[in-house]
Amino acid sequence: MAANTSSIAPAPPLKDELDIVIPTIRNLDFLEMWRPFFEPYHLIIVQDGDPTKAIKVPPGFDYELYNRNDINKLLGPRASCISFKDSACRCFGYMVSKKKYIYTIDDDCFVANDPSGKAINALEQHIKNLLCPSTPYFFNTLYDPYREGADYVRGYPFSLREGAPTAISHGLWLNIPDYDAPTQLVKPLERNTRYVDTVLTIPKGTLFPMCGMNLAFDRDLIGPAMYFGLMGDGQPIGRYDDMWAGWCCKVICDHMGLGIKTGLPYIYHSKASNPFVNLRKEYKGIFWQEDIIPFFQSVVLPKECTTVQKCYIELSKQVKEKLSKVDPYFDKLADAMVTWIEAWDELNPAGASQANGKA
Amino acid sequence: MAANTSSIAPAPPLKDELDIVIPTIRNLDFLEMWRPFFEPYHLIIVQDGDPTKAIKVPPGFDYELYNRNDINKLLGPRASCISFKDSACRCFGYMVSKKKYIYTIDDDCFVANDPSGKAINALEQHIKNLLCPSTPYFFNTLYDPYREGADYVRGYPFSLREGAPTAISHGLWLNIPDYDAPTQLVKPLERNTRYVDTVLTIPKGTLFPMCGMNLAFDRDLIGPAMYFGLMGDGQPIGRYDDMWAGWCCKVICDHMGLGIKTGLPYIYHSKASNPFVNLRKEYKGIFWQEDIIPFFQSVVLPKECTTVQKCYIELSKQVKEKLSKVDPYFDKLADAMVTWIEAWDELNPAGASQANGKA
Repeated sequence: MAANTSSIAPAPPLKDELDIVIPTIRNLDFLEMWRPFFEPYHLIIVQDGDPTKAIKVPPGFDYELYNRNDINKLLGPRASCISFKDSACRCFGYMVSKKKYIYTIDDDCFVANDPSGKAINALEQHIKNLLCPSTPYFFNTLYDPYREGADYVRGYPFSLREGAPTAISHGLWLNIPDYDAPTQLVKPLERNTRYVDTVLTIPKGTLFPMCGMNLAFDRDLIGPAMYFGLMGDGQPIGRYDDMWAGWCCKVICDHMGLGIKTGLPYIYHSKASNPFVNLRKEYKGIFWQEDIIPFFQSVVLPKECTTVQKCYIELSKQVKEKLSKVDPYFDKLADAMVTWIEAWDELNPAGASQANGKA
Repeated sequence: MAANTSSIAPAPPLKDELDIVIPTIRNLDFLEMWRPFFEPYHLIIVQDGDPTKAIKVPPGFDYELYNRNDINKLLGPRASCISFKDSACRCFGYMVSKKKYIYTIDDDCFVANDPSGKAINALEQHIKNLLCPSTPYFFNTLYDPYREGADYVRGYPFSLREGAPTAISHGLWLNIPDYDAPTQLVKPLERNTRYVDTVLTIPKGTLFPMCGMNLAFDRDLIGPAMYFGLMGDGQPIGRYDDMWAGWCCKVICDHMGLGIKTGLPYIYHSKASNPFVNLRKEYKGIFWQEDIIPFFQSVVLPKECTTVQKCYIELSKQVKEKLSKVDPYFDKLADAMVTWIEAWDELNPAGASQANGKA
């Protein structure tokens, strides 16, 4: 109960502790719309396609922009682990950031309104979510006990009320829901209009589909596991970048005693992507996930894995061993997972030792 | 997706398939307020205290009333498993019902309004919840995929979209939240005013605090596990009746491949019970639950347990073996669990064989 009173205070802006990572901005309205909320923060824009095409950022924003040439120059041969011509390249931005927190958002996601008509400050809600504990060990029926006007209900063991540090805050979308291509094709007109006024912890041992459209995380706690895989140009699959990251992060968070929240804040997802293009990108994933999910459900990380990096390397071994038989792609992906950690540690030598030191 | 279209139809009233079970009605306003919603159904009222005191039911309701004398007459020596002077006695009503569905509600729970001001038909929402599948094997970030305007999101494995039959629908409370005595004492003025417009499945492997104030279940699927334990007169503990039932039901549902939902519908909980009285009832439970929860988290039911009855008997053995060392009360409770199943099967010979026959 004492834990709750502090959480009622407004979330601090974390101005110097948070970077906003955006894959290629095709739409200038996007930044104008978010200006009141994003202008105080530093932006990292990762351009997913042709490096000769210029991205115009309106004046007033503090940003750095990376294109493929920059990625190649910074990572050398290890640049192979960063997807090309796919928004999965955004994870390069997580790697080059020096901040504790990351917020990532797609350029077709606009500011949503809450039921009273007020513009939702998505970033503020993500920060609130990240700054108060998660409750992965027992389900609280009144949802987030750290929210004003809520608490743990009768029957919630007191020893579990400290919860777990929150590593990830997964926000949702009004208007266009994040459906797969088959569901898009069957329900082209479906819109999400339901504002569900809650934040909840995904319980320990439960997997979920993590969407990268509106996502915040604590880079110090989980950054090295936030790899968006090999998607797009030259790869047999797309649209599973955030899913892959989510499944890896979830088993590692469960192992490390960290929490993942989902729910508020909403953004307004303006545009459905083309379901035919999506089907081509997704169809192998639709088969593969039938093997991927049982794999992640059965992953056990040994207790020697005391840092996110160690967990991730161990996971890459298990991917190679168990999923390569599904498709040779997973052999390549397992290698890229190792390359990603090597690149992460090279760019984050302090973070690497800090992460190791925490063990 | 095809599964969803059928769920959009309004919930049928299930007039001949549902009983409403109420422990002692002290408040005549209660039935008058619920009249438009409850009048079509059969009520089973279980009087928790002095059998000589008459309960006045207003005209127009179809009901049967059981007092302690009736319980003793019907169950003989097995009546010992039914709590006396405690609302836990309500589970006797589950046992004598002949219907497929049960809704149970406390007499201080009134009709709530939704945010538009409309009176909430709690029973209708519970029926909807029970008639469409649960999703215990994977978390759907847009909550209940069977609700109008919702579906499974990208990354949700297609093989898991059939879900699981729903055994329990756990509804919530506006106004007075269901807090334990310590939280009541610390936050006497806290009221739940947040209407969270969702229903979600408690994932497999996750325990939750089940409250009996506003609860519906499928008697055929889970009835024999819905035992509210030994509380009240002559017992060292109170206010853990519904919690105990919830923990037993959850591990059995997980084992049997059944789902439990929580969320909508809300009722209006009018009156906080006395926190000092509650503290006296609860304080042993506050200690004991620190052992009870790890116990339930580690329960494994062998695959020979193919009916709810068999699961429950097995659970009673494990309670005796593992929790008796916490307090001799659990030895007595384990015996009462066996007595409860004997009494259930005696009163429900067809149900007993049906449940066994399903194996």
